[in-house]
Parts: sequence; structure tokens; C-alpha cells
Amino acid sequence: MQRRDFLRAAPAAALAWPAQLSAFRTQLRRSTTPPTEDYWEVVRSAFLVPDDRIYLNVGTLGVQPRVVVDAVVEHTRRVAMSYPPGVEWDTLKQEAGTLLNGDPAGFVFPRNTTEGMNFVAQGLELDAGDEVLTTDHEHIGGLCCWQLLAARRGVVLRPLPIPPTPRDAGESVDRFRRARSARTRVLSVSHVNFTNGVVMPVRALVELARPRGVLVVVDGAHPPGMMPVDLRALDADCYASSPHKWLLAPQGSGLLYLREEWRARLWPTLASGGWDDPKLGADRLNHLGTADESRLAGLLAALRFHQAIGSERVHARIRELRGMLREAVAGIPGVAVITPPGDELSAGLLSLRTSRPALDVQAQLARAANIRTRVIGEYGYGWLRLSAHVYNRPAEITRMADVLRAVLQGRV
Amino acid sequence: MQRRDFLRAAPAAALAWPAQLSAFRTQLRRSTTPPTEDYWEVVRSAFLVPDDRIYLNVGTLGVQPRVVVDAVVEHTRRVAMSYPPGVEWDTLKQEAGTLLNGDPAGFVFPRNTTEGMNFVAQGLELDAGDEVLTTDHEHIGGLCCWQLLAARRGVVLRPLPIPPTPRDAGESVDRFRRARSARTRVLSVSHVNFTNGVVMPVRALVELARPRGVLVVVDGAHPPGMMPVDLRALDADCYASSPHKWLLAPQGSGLLYLREEWRARLWPTLASGGWDDPKLGADRLNHLGTADESRLAGLLAALRFHQAIGSERVHARIRELRGMLREAVAGIPGVAVITPPGDELSAGLLSLRTSRPALDVQAQLARAANIRTRVIGEYGYGWLRLSAHVYNRPAEITRMADVLRAVLQGRV
Repeated sequence: MQRRDFLRAAPAAALAWPAQLSAFRTQLRRSTTPPTEDYWEVVRSAFLVPDDRIYLNVGTLGVQPRVVVDAVVEHTRRVAMSYPPGVEWDTLKQEAGTLLNGDPAGFVFPRNTTEGMNFVAQGLELDAGDEVLTTDHEHIGGLCCWQLLAARRGVVLRPLPIPPTPRDAGESVDRFRRARSARTRVLSVSHVNFTNGVVMPVRALVELARPRGVLVVVDGAHPPGMMPVDLRALDADCYASSPHKWLLAPQGSGLLYLREEWRARLWPTLASGGWDDPKLGADRLNHLGTADESRLAGLLAALRFHQAIGSERVHARIRELRGMLREAVAGIPGVAVITPPGDELSAGLLSLRTSRPALDVQAQLARAANIRTRVIGEYGYGWLRLSAHVYNRPAEITRMADVLRAVLQGRV
Repeated sequence: MQRRDFLRAAPAAALAWPAQLSAFRTQLRRSTTPPTEDYWEVVRSAFLVPDDRIYLNVGTLGVQPRVVVDAVVEHTRRVAMSYPPGVEWDTLKQEAGTLLNGDPAGFVFPRNTTEGMNFVAQGLELDAGDEVLTTDHEHIGGLCCWQLLAARRGVVLRPLPIPPTPRDAGESVDRFRRARSARTRVLSVSHVNFTNGVVMPVRALVELARPRGVLVVVDGAHPPGMMPVDLRALDADCYASSPHKWLLAPQGSGLLYLREEWRARLWPTLASGGWDDPKLGADRLNHLGTADESRLAGLLAALRFHQAIGSERVHARIRELRGMLREAVAGIPGVAVITPPGDELSAGLLSLRTSRPALDVQAQLARAANIRTRVIGEYGYGWLRLSAHVYNRPAEITRMADVLRAVLQGRV
């Protein structure tokens, strides 16, 4: 990173973040509608990513707009001045509920999906022999919690194979239907697989599971901010997410949504004051002792930044960029796209198989053009994963494809 | 808070925090030795607390020096630029080990004491009927984890009464000796009680407990940064702390130290990658998914800030200020000091009983002179607690005492 870039990143010290957000909204209103590339340049200018950086890995961690950084900084500084501003809990839950169509009372804010999933797994009463069904596309953040229960409590964890490129959502539902046994207590699936970017049929799985008393627990690390999420319609028992990915919230921002029946019933994992007060509902899990409240200020700013552009517009742009990514790489010799086409089965993530080992390709992309990607080494897949967000420019995608072509031809 | 104060708090944008710390070290070297009040004014100038604020509540949350804020800010900004700097784990463990005389391999960094204590309680295998002995001076952060085990697993939690103003450390050891039964598996105590500021005889309790196979788990929220802590000499099984108190680390900084035998043995509570790899030892508990790494950058800066002044000097100053607090309030009609005198039984915290309800007194101190204190309402004690650190000025203590006198005389 250049010193120049670092200086550029210095915040406008006296500007409190809500005022900054208002200015951004005004700027956007003055831009063209429907949005052209000029509009997206205004959006890009709200970020701190240097011009010579091609960041195609929001799937691991988003980059935060300046307004989110400033919300964190302003909060941190007030704590240091001995005036901790606290957390606007009601506002935060309200905004999360509005974006994701959830009841504000159902939200918990752990540090990430991993913690949310552990809160669920450790908080249920599962006995030895009880079965948890999952897939071979789960991230460690949604998997290890069940592995721990298997080792410690004798719970049986059964991962079902899901094809890398499914033809339709029904395939997965069928696998779960066939695999279900009398001891099945939980289905644990990703809403969007981190491996191949496939959107899993959560609603259909809930319809399959609930009449049989089976819980559906969702690792929803990716969807919020990337695609429409309707928590009431999905109706999963528990839905965990990481707003530090596609919602561009600060690193270490998590979210857990509990269906009403679990709010007073799930055992807390990290007990603090009020842990045993059922009237507190899901808030029992928000009582964690003195935690980093600046992250929650940043999360609130991120939710508002997202809404300043507008959810539909953000989601459409992400799909548009994903389409550009697909088109740019599809014709390159040595590339086979893993992620299925179509907006029903995929959203923002695009995974590829490359004729050279993905780790080598990743390293070459980084070296030649400062491009950041992710390799899915998990389960031995060895895929290269690309993910773009509103701050990415179409020219970056073209450039990435040019370099990728050169790398696979051995010219880099 | 005035706008002027907020502006004053703006960081020197281009100054990376290690350079800032060097400049502070140079400034200190140029000051008088042994330190006079001029020296402590140099220290004060490293903080962001406004001049018109009298902050006497480090016992709840420290205020961070500018260098700690800047370490957090610089880290947060780099993440937003798409270059997450990661965590200097080895350096962090090394510095924590040096300050607290612990093996670097034994350190875990949860978000606070509450989480550390829960990691311990949830990570042990306690059966129904197993007994946990504790006291009536525990903070919810060190207590709720055992209450949860009592409700969920049938563990028996027995709080022993400890006098508000003990005459010597032996008293508490005797209570535990007499209360111990064949089913006792754990002693859970504070190293320094948050209620009355009493230093508990942890080493003696370990000597009592270990030969009988009883674990000693310590809520050490307060001591690190406040007084010398020698983890090897204490030799407790588990020691949890909150460096965001007396070590002046960012809000949401925790620490958990595990004795060697527990590092590969304690069950993780929040399982992520490597949770089941015994070779990772205590690091299994540091694998928490994508967490807020800027807090750890801030914790490292806080450890170095502490060492820049020097541990002995910081601890001596805290005792000196505590002595000033005691002297300033002791003669005020309507004040009875709860905290026992002497450096063996107390360190940085000072608790008082006041002739008017403590909550009223606290509100009056805040209103009349912008003084921040803590009321210990827990267990019905109703005490006012004062705590000062290196950024406090003797004149602030005098002013507090004047206002307290006036409040108790009904003149405010």
C-alpha cells in the first residue's frame, strides 16, 4: 500500500457520519437515474479502496465505505474521551428488520456467523444419537459447531453430497427428503453456499422439516446485502449471518435471527446479566458484558449506506457485475464455470475451475495486477471464487479477465 | 461534550501509532525522574479526556490513550482499503506474557472477562451435583456462567459470604476451607473484588484446592494494569481478564490465561477451524472466525503504552491516587470507607458507604462537576466506588471530595 493511499484514507475529522451520509444521498440524487456508470463512480468515491486495487473478494470480507469507518472511529474516540455513546439497539434492530423483513425482537448481534451458529448449536438440547443433516458445501463457520456436538455429546452429523453445479433447487430438497430418519432433529444448510455460490432452497427445506419437528438452521453468511432476504417468508428456526461481508459492515459484525419460539427458549452460550429472564427474549443473547459497541455503530451506518443507494439497486448491480464476471471468463480456454447460471440458483458469487492449480492462478492475479480473489480449497474442490460489489468497476472485471487469460496461457 | 473537545480528539492522520508511541517515550524521558506532577501532566496529554471531565470509573471501563485509538483507527482503515493487516499474534502473546509473567502459549483473547469465564465454565465437564464454590462479591461476568451450568446441568453453585471489610486474607481462605465438600470441583473467585476492591488470596486458594483436585478459576477483570500480576506464581487453572479496564485497551478487549494442562483439554465454546486439533493448544479458543482484529491492534498498543511509562511506575501511581482518594473522603461526615486499608488487601478501587443513597450522590457528583463514578448496587450493597488511573490529576480528587462534602451536607 502506498503512503499516498493511506493519507487519502484519512477521515474528514469534524464530519459526524450521519452528515456525511446525507451528503452522499444528495450526491446520488443529483446523479443520473436509472444509474449509469457515472452513478456508480459516485458510489465508488464513497470507498477507500485505492484505484490500483482490484478487490474481488467481498465473499470473504467486504470493504467498508468511509461513512462506516467514520462511524466506528467516532464511537471509539468518544469512548476514549470517557463518553461511551452506547448502542442504539432499537434503531439497529429496526433497520435490520426492515432490510431483511424480520421482527426487530428476533435479532442478536454476535461477532460473526460462526458465533451465531455456535449460539444455536450449543443452545439446543440435542442428545446422543440425535441427527444433524448438512451438506458438503458448508463453511467451517457453520460446520464446526455441529462437529463439536458430535464429539462432545454424541450427536450424529451427516453431510449429504450436493452436486457442484445443480440443475435445480429440487435436487437438494430430494437429497434431504431421502436422507431424513426418525432421529433427524436438525437440518443445517447455507442459504448461499460459499463454495459454488448456489442459492439453497431454504423455504422448501423448512416446509419439508417443520411438520416432522425438524429444525432448520441456516448459515446465511452471504445473502444479506447481496440479494433479497425475507426472514419471515423463509421462516427458518435460526438464521446466522456476517454483515461484514455483503453489507459492508465493520470486520467482526455478526447477526443471528431467531424465530419467535426460540427467543425465550434457546440456552445462552455466553451467559451474562439477564441470561435467565425469558421476558428479555432474544436479548438474553445480546447481553455479553462490555463488548465493542463501535462495531454496532458501524453496522448501523452500513445498513443506512445500503439503504441510501437502495436495496433493489444494490442487488441488481451485484447481479449485473456477477453477469459481467461470468461473461468475461466463460470464453477463456482453461476455465470451466462451476456456479450454475440464472438468478434462481445463484446471486453474487462465481466459482471457476481452472486448468492450472487455483492457488497458482490466484497468486499470479495478485502479482500481475493486484487482484484479490479467494480459492475454495475446502473439501478438495480447488476452485477460484470471484465476487464483486458496488465499488467494483466494469473495467476491473475486463482487466481481471485479460490477466486470467494470460495466466492460463502461460504468458504471465 | 463540546464540539471543541471533539475536534481536539481528531487524530494526527498521517502518524502511524508506533511512531506516536516513540515520540511519547522521548517526551517522558525528557521529563523529571522520579516523576513529579509535571511528568504526569505529560502522561495526561497523551489522553483525550476533556479538561472539564473528572473520570473516576476506570473500574468499569478505562479511557484509551490516543495511541490506542489510533492503532484501532489505522487498522480499521486498512481493512476498508482492502488490506486487512491481520493480527500480530506472537507479539501480542509475548507482550501479555511479559507483563503478566505468563507463558505466551497460554493466552486467549476473547471480547472480555465474561466471555473468558464462559469459555471456562462451558468448556469443563461438570456433572449434576458437582459443586462450584464462589463468594458474594462476584460480578455477573464471573457468576452467570456458573448459574447457567446450575440451571442447565444440575451443577450446585454455593456463594460464600465474605465480609465487606475483611481484616486479613486468611479469613477468606478459612471460609473456603470450611465450606469445601467431597463434591467440590471448582473455586471461582475474583482476584480483586469489583464490590469492595479487596485483593483475594488467589495463591493460597490454589494451594488449598489443587491437592484435592479442585480447580481455581479467577475473574481477574481488574488486576492487569492496576497492580502486579504474576500468572506463573498465582498458578490458577484459568484466569480471565478485561484489559479494557486498567490496561486502557479498546472497549471489548478480553484475555484468558490457561494453565498448561487445560490448553489442549478445555472444550471450545465457539468452535471454528482447528477446534479439535490438540496441537493448537489454547489457540483453539482463538479461532473464532472473522473477528474484529482492530481491537487486538489496540490491545497491543495499550500494552506498549503501559510499558512506555513502566509497570512499576503505573502501579505506584494508581496506589498513590487511591491513597489520595481515601484521604480526601475519609474525613467527610457521612462517609464510611468500605475498602480495607493497606496494599496487601487493596489496590486501585475504593468503595464508600454514604449517608445519602449512593445513586443520588452519584447523580449529584455528575451534575455538579461532571464527575463519573460507579454505584455498586449488586447484592444490595449500595456503595459508591471510585477508581483513578494515570490520567487523573490530584486536583480532580480534591474537587471530587469538595463536591461530595457539599452533597452530603445538602448544599448541592
